[in-house]
Amino acid sequence: MLGELGRAIPADMPRYALKIEYDGGPFAGWQRQKDQPSVQGAIEAALARLERDLPAIAAAGRTDAGVHALGQVAHCDMGKDWAPFRLMEALNYHLKPAPVAVVACAPVADDFHARFSARERRYLFRLVSRRAPLVHDRGQAWRVGHALDLAAMQAGAARLIGRHDFTTFRSLQCQAESPVKTLDALDVEALPYPGGGTEYRFHVRARSFLHNQVRSFVGTLERVGAGAWSPDDVSAALEARDRAACGPVSPPGGLYLERVGYPTDPFA
Amino acid sequence: MLGELGRAIPADMPRYALKIEYDGGPFAGWQRQKDQPSVQGAIEAALARLERDLPAIAAAGRTDAGVHALGQVAHCDMGKDWAPFRLMEALNYHLKPAPVAVVACAPVADDFHARFSARERRYLFRLVSRRAPLVHDRGQAWRVGHALDLAAMQAGAARLIGRHDFTTFRSLQCQAESPVKTLDALDVEALPYPGGGTEYRFHVRARSFLHNQVRSFVGTLERVGAGAWSPDDVSAALEARDRAACGPVSPPGGLYLERVGYPTDPFA
Repeated sequence: MLGELGRAIPADMPRYALKIEYDGGPFAGWQRQKDQPSVQGAIEAALARLERDLPAIAAAGRTDAGVHALGQVAHCDMGKDWAPFRLMEALNYHLKPAPVAVVACAPVADDFHARFSARERRYLFRLVSRRAPLVHDRGQAWRVGHALDLAAMQAGAARLIGRHDFTTFRSLQCQAESPVKTLDALDVEALPYPGGGTEYRFHVRARSFLHNQVRSFVGTLERVGAGAWSPDDVSAALEARDRAACGPVSPPGGLYLERVGYPTDPFA
Repeated sequence: MLGELGRAIPADMPRYALKIEYDGGPFAGWQRQKDQPSVQGAIEAALARLERDLPAIAAAGRTDAGVHALGQVAHCDMGKDWAPFRLMEALNYHLKPAPVAVVACAPVADDFHARFSARERRYLFRLVSRRAPLVHDRGQAWRVGHALDLAAMQAGAARLIGRHDFTTFRSLQCQAESPVKTLDALDVEALPYPGGGTEYRFHVRARSFLHNQVRSFVGTLERVGAGAWSPDDVSAALEARDRAACGPVSPPGGLYLERVGYPTDPFA
């Protein structure tokens, strides 16, 4: 068995699943990079304070720069047995002051893989409509200054549900083999925003996603909410199977990897 | 009529009420200070970009360093008439990048005073119980690593409701003439916290408060929730009328001035 860095992982290394929360703002994304801070790099640096020469970790979703997580899942292989609670506490101790926290830790079987065992990803996108700039949610939600039509956004979202070729809604850098995915849910709800205005929450669920897919959905549906696009325009964009037909891609700060589903919940 | 800076305020200066949201983290508090950033100073600097030689502004609650606001109210006197929406937009433009936003603006009568006309203040305190450090709510809530007993905190809170001499629960620096106040509400609710754990929200309401009163309540009730104090201990502390009998004062980052009530809502 080979780790992602190419090191052999001894079969007897105990494996742990980590549920991870982070603020994506200061990071160039999940994935380790040579010259820029990454969430993976922060966690691997904390692991390196616990044991030497550990293999690379793997995560369910390789979130982009500025994208947050409430329930990212990664797995790590340790050289010795750790009480899960102690491993979580030790990692959180060494992660400080990075805005990354391990909120749950559980031993898993050797064939558990945070990415390849995952059966479902849920994303949350927070879009706030109000005139004043955001204060407490700066970098944590996308603010627009105009009103949005909830029913129109819901009607537009309905056009995207199901199994489709989502070429329109994936970035040109997307490395997925196929643009065909099944979108299981894209629910939009409206909540009063404290201090005035309305928050729209997009709850998006699929087995897996293409690169920039959720932000492409939200950016397009925002245009529908603003009245610039109709729900029919969403269908036409989908059917075009052409990236140029997509609406604007929303900024990353409103997006959260909320939950990853596995055949058996490792943290239950 | 004299402004707080001692300047005469011409009776014909139009007065505006501002509803203000801010993150107290980077500020030494509401009140203008010579050498440190303050919320009042930030707003007055923005006003100075609009007109020269304006009088000082006054606010309903002079929040401490690190304390936030969702609905602070202040009033300002302008040299010329402003469309309220334009005044709000212009202030928000000049407030950037400070984490302060004017979320509503309304013309008010000359005898409206943000502080002296107020009939009610509502504060919110956010206390999160979970092991992992906070990520998205860093500086926005007080985290404790142990479990808390909601019913015990509610029972302790009930001992504080009503008209009392709150000497135990005010800081030694408090400049209020009398320690006797009427506490109208101190409700505690529990919510699941995203990513695990429980958030306790304290909703506190009174005509006015003593210095550090809400943070003294919450710090004391946290001890009740942790099992270190009983509700009877809260009653004994109240009856002692002695600052030394208070529990620990909670940190400021969980506290929000949520709403200020007036005989007529200027923003309605």
